[in-house]
Amino acid sequence: MNKAITSRDVDFAKWYTDVVMAAKLCAYSSVKGCTVMEPNGYAIWEKMQQILDRKFKELGHVNVAMPLFIPESMLRKEGELVNGFAPEVAWVTAGGSKELEERLAVRPTSETMFSDYYSTHVNSYKDLPCLFNQWCSVVRWEKETRPFLRSREIFWQEGHTIHETAKEAEEETKRMMEVYEWFHHEILAIPSIIGRKTEKEKFAGAEYTLTNEALMYNGVALQAGTSHYFGQKFAEAYDITFTNKENKLEHAYQTSWGTSNRMIGGLIMVHSDDYGLVLPPRIAPRQVVIIPIGADEEVLKLANEFADKLNENNIVTYIDNTDKSPGFKFAEAEVNGIPVRIEIGARDLANNLITLARRDTREKIQESKDIDIVEYVKNLLETIQKDMYNRALERRDALTFEAKDLNEMEKILNTQPGFIYADWCGDPACETRIKEIKGCKSRCISDHKLITGKCVCCGKEAKHNVVWGIQY
Amino acid sequence: MNKAITSRDVDFAKWYTDVVMAAKLCAYSSVKGCTVMEPNGYAIWEKMQQILDRKFKELGHVNVAMPLFIPESMLRKEGELVNGFAPEVAWVTAGGSKELEERLAVRPTSETMFSDYYSTHVNSYKDLPCLFNQWCSVVRWEKETRPFLRSREIFWQEGHTIHETAKEAEEETKRMMEVYEWFHHEILAIPSIIGRKTEKEKFAGAEYTLTNEALMYNGVALQAGTSHYFGQKFAEAYDITFTNKENKLEHAYQTSWGTSNRMIGGLIMVHSDDYGLVLPPRIAPRQVVIIPIGADEEVLKLANEFADKLNENNIVTYIDNTDKSPGFKFAEAEVNGIPVRIEIGARDLANNLITLARRDTREKIQESKDIDIVEYVKNLLETIQKDMYNRALERRDALTFEAKDLNEMEKILNTQPGFIYADWCGDPACETRIKEIKGCKSRCISDHKLITGKCVCCGKEAKHNVVWGIQY
Repeated sequence: MNKAITSRDVDFAKWYTDVVMAAKLCAYSSVKGCTVMEPNGYAIWEKMQQILDRKFKELGHVNVAMPLFIPESMLRKEGELVNGFAPEVAWVTAGGSKELEERLAVRPTSETMFSDYYSTHVNSYKDLPCLFNQWCSVVRWEKETRPFLRSREIFWQEGHTIHETAKEAEEETKRMMEVYEWFHHEILAIPSIIGRKTEKEKFAGAEYTLTNEALMYNGVALQAGTSHYFGQKFAEAYDITFTNKENKLEHAYQTSWGTSNRMIGGLIMVHSDDYGLVLPPRIAPRQVVIIPIGADEEVLKLANEFADKLNENNIVTYIDNTDKSPGFKFAEAEVNGIPVRIEIGARDLANNLITLARRDTREKIQESKDIDIVEYVKNLLETIQKDMYNRALERRDALTFEAKDLNEMEKILNTQPGFIYADWCGDPACETRIKEIKGCKSRCISDHKLITGKCVCCGKEAKHNVVWGIQY
Repeated sequence: MNKAITSRDVDFAKWYTDVVMAAKLCAYSSVKGCTVMEPNGYAIWEKMQQILDRKFKELGHVNVAMPLFIPESMLRKEGELVNGFAPEVAWVTAGGSKELEERLAVRPTSETMFSDYYSTHVNSYKDLPCLFNQWCSVVRWEKETRPFLRSREIFWQEGHTIHETAKEAEEETKRMMEVYEWFHHEILAIPSIIGRKTEKEKFAGAEYTLTNEALMYNGVALQAGTSHYFGQKFAEAYDITFTNKENKLEHAYQTSWGTSNRMIGGLIMVHSDDYGLVLPPRIAPRQVVIIPIGADEEVLKLANEFADKLNENNIVTYIDNTDKSPGFKFAEAEVNGIPVRIEIGARDLANNLITLARRDTREKIQESKDIDIVEYVKNLLETIQKDMYNRALERRDALTFEAKDLNEMEKILNTQPGFIYADWCGDPACETRIKEIKGCKSRCISDHKLITGKCVCCGKEAKHNVVWGIQY
């Protein structure tokens, strides 16, 4: 076990930070609350961006760049939004040596700027829909920060679309939620629960918010991608009107949706272990490492041959031919979460053998050196991807509970937190009461059937079944 | 001619803005000095990023993300840098409702943050080199702004590398300058002059700056990518030391290099015309548009067949099958700078013919519908790319002059500005005097031989031949 990494079961928070640092994903900087995304971390973010960007474009979205700054008066036009974000806005008050006439927010989110743009560029139904997305960073003046999970600067994408009809905009809201679900399940190997946020937990200014909720190894929930339907709220606040097909002036319908580099934190907390990072092959920037043992010519020849074949077949492979010891190289590949390690040594080769090691299970497999390496590794990577998803699903299911009353809920939260299904009357007062138990919040309204039909908190008639949990 | 576009020869500045707006590259926003990069403009920037990013990575560079904010005290550690940038820094002074203890600069450039990182992460020669790059936006509080050329928010990449020896760092400085030269010549079809900046014009804090200087259609120069050698200056200011191979503590050697979305402005000002944008095929996000004339079944079938074949061969092609008139579609494709337009109509098809139009020359070519469309278009795109470079080179050469004395220089600048080769004694006072003529500045020290051997300004013995020009 890596000496630098605290055990996950001893101190989860410390383990998390240890993995981030040991895998060199991110470093503290001299700027309070801001971190440096180091090459290993940034490479994961780049791969996330590539995969999502391709998907967004397949669905007709295009990228744009809105200004980084938002004048205070513009931000204040939508009352709910500004109330939601004002407490954590960073304010620019001077440009060079001159005081600004009006202070500018460093964007916390860009509904304002997209609405400003749409208000001057959308005139007719012929201009609709606009399916825009932006890759950028946003700033929230958080007090407590943690690498990837809570930072003053968040790297994300924010989609902002505008439509002719409510129906179209609602379809977009749902479609993009499904894109995130696909991304989490198929790429990140993270199972998630999808549902609608309660009024209390929805995005400031939205008609409603759809969310993807994932469960970490320690039973704490992570909000993993949200999609908001705004109806005509922003269109009214920012005066976005268009001439519809009946030649009448109408306010347009908007959505926004986003996910961020906090999902790197999710990858760590769902999959990683006491030996460091574990990455699902589909998101791993480097999928295979080949470690030649000794400088035998045959060994190096086979290493190069394997690397070439694998790379030619889009399996990202590198050879570690640094002058470190094999044991050190093995540990480093483990810490960095390289899904498959191939060890080639002269002694094994004399017996026609090579060794493959799976990062996820740490299992070692001896095989003939004459296997079809591309086919073999391709299958192995797919097996790892599936197994990782299934293990994450098992863990989540093991940490998913039902509660009939507040006592049961408390007991669960005090022993082993997780997702708790419980019925709810719909009254925000009950949400507030439940939050007193270790900060437990509604994650989303579930499509689970009612359990008792009575609110878990007040005992009155339940309206919904809700998933509850403690959150990051 | 597009009615909305002022003629280039009548009012170049107005023509420029008209092209930006007509091609929907960028729009004004309600935030003073900040613009919106619209889908058409952002797509060009994305393609620039892809091409450069691939090249950087081939040369061993990796991407990272440094914080957006820089505490004032940190920025002040390198005196020259802060003096160079302080007049145009945007300052954050409050987070939420709380005044900050120390104000934070919104990064104008990131030497400070990279140096901060290197100071804690570089310990031994084994940690070197670090070949880091960052894609981001930076902020400069400019008073006068123009789309792409001068904006309060600039989209760019900034490479920051750190090395064991001066030699290695200097090689990197030169190598990256050559990458920009390659990018301008081969991809953007823009010829450029390469050289070293004078002491007066070099980057604040650099030992020296290498630059790529391009000439616009109107004879004004555009600085197009710079590469700086810092020696140990930042290492001394930020205390970046490492144990070298002789086991001695030494300050490390640094470089930085960058180019930005102002090159979109360069593309416009070098290649575009009174009909709108003209893009070299290698940087055009969409390379071919097919316009079916009428709804004839054979026409649509051939249009689809062509589009499929071209796209399969990585020639980005789309069919304009909106309900606009053919004439409107032609004009729109021209304004947007699509390099090749294919017109397919029933009447032509009856004679087995199709029409191809080159955007650069506006030439129309009739061909048999049975040509090998992929081969034909591939060759045509390459021809356009080469012709565009050659035309730009001819224009530049036509606007390149030599001056023996200040009178000649003034005469040139008053008739038709351009690049002016003239000898210089090396005294900054002469540079200051020359700048009084229409703001003419030294672009770079050239490798041109001396013309008279006397300084164009003071007549004393010349040290260098220098390229001079008015700049954006």
